[in-house]
Amino acid sequence: MKSRLIAEEKTQTWILVFDAGDEVASTLKKFAEEHHLAGSSFKAVGALSGVKVGWFNRETKKYETSADLKEQVELLSLIGDIALTPDGKPQVHAHIVVGKRDGTAHGGHLLEAHVWPTLELVLTETPAHLRKQHDPESGLALIRIED
Amino acid sequence: MKSRLIAEEKTQTWILVFDAGDEVASTLKKFAEEHHLAGSSFKAVGALSGVKVGWFNRETKKYETSADLKEQVELLSLIGDIALTPDGKPQVHAHIVVGKRDGTAHGGHLLEAHVWPTLELVLTETPAHLRKQHDPESGLALIRIED
Amino acid sequence: MKSRLIAEEKTQTWILVFDAGDEVASTLKKFAEEHHLAGSSFKAVGALSGVKVGWFNRETKKYETSADLKEQVELLSLIGDIALTPDGKPQVHAHIVVGKRDGTAHGGHLLEAHVWPTLELVLTETPAHLRKQHDPESGLALIRIED
Repeated sequence: MKSRLIAEEKTQTWILVFDAGDEVASTLKKFAEEHHLAGSSFKAVGALSGVKVGWFNRETKKYETSADLKEQVELLSLIGDIALTPDGKPQVHAHIVVGKRDGTAHGGHLLEAHVWPTLELVLTETPAHLRKQHDPESGLALIRIED
Repeated sequence: MKSRLIAEEKTQTWILVFDAGDEVASTLKKFAEEHHLAGSSFKAVGALSGVKVGWFNRETKKYETSADLKEQVELLSLIGDIALTPDGKPQVHAHIVVGKRDGTAHGGHLLEAHVWPTLELVLTETPAHLRKQHDPESGLALIRIED
Repeated sequence: MKSRLIAEEKTQTWILVFDAGDEVASTLKKFAEEHHLAGSSFKAVGALSGVKVGWFNRETKKYETSADLKEQVELLSLIGDIALTPDGKPQVHAHIVVGKRDGTAHGGHLLEAHVWPTLELVLTETPAHLRKQHDPESGLALIRIED
């Protein structure tokens, strides 16, 4: 594990309120690009009319769909961060937990989620830039902190 | 989706330590009223002797009880925010995930939760006021950010 | 419930990026000790090659293993805090939610978790020191805020 102090004083806190019908992953990505976010973390609650989440398969090195829920669910937790890809674009990494009508919880890596009626997300952007590098073992771009 | 920068510098961070027997929703509401909170977000962990959570029914426009657990559970995640209702009172919006004795996770919109032996909540209040407006489609008051 | 304002201005925000193979509970404890953390909260996402979580048994006053997953899972939420034990050592309290290949969510009190390929944790340290005291009813050390 490596660590880095990313803010000693000035951080920016944003609230993002999603509208009914918004798709979460693409809306968040667009927001990150428009605001040039490079070192953010966030958390959110809300409700969704549908959600698709993934599980990373170590053999294929790809995300497979682990749940594709076409029903109204409570968004219990959406936690994630934003860092820069190797070519300098902001990349959103978000994991999600939802609650179904029977109270059971389900979740995974956020692939797609449709808001209804609202989603309230609080995001903190720090002055530090987080950078990702290609990780040959997993095939993913992972945040790398220089020694 | 609309967004707003709610804190560029001064935020207040609180720790709330609940006692055995405290009911979470009412205690948090009372704290928000006493401290005139108007733009907060929070997260918590702990354990509960019982919890009741809800799922929003789009047809009836009401929360129905999706799980009513009368047993000791680990509080895995309590995430939420506090904003002002149309008539200016702080309203707590909290979603909860719990873990049962068999390790399965359950959760929903927080209706009622009884602490045992503790619950540790970290809350950040920003200088901005978040305001809710009545949403005719869902029948709920939702946070609204002016253009 | 008791509360305390723990930061009005200066907080420190850290990002911790775990490597493949790191054990989460021990790595986090080591980090807390090395940096003398005394009033922190954190949240994280990532993925794990295995995880063991606990449920607190009120009768025995001990954590029992509620899930011992020896499989790749998405780390959907790791939320917790760091406070000082009665003898002044930093203690990590963390609760975890994971998503399995079938999209179901499981979780509990973090006992042991093995990172693969990454875990990204954002931690905020406040100037205030949080102190734990022995609680005779549960047999645990719990954060105590003086009146």
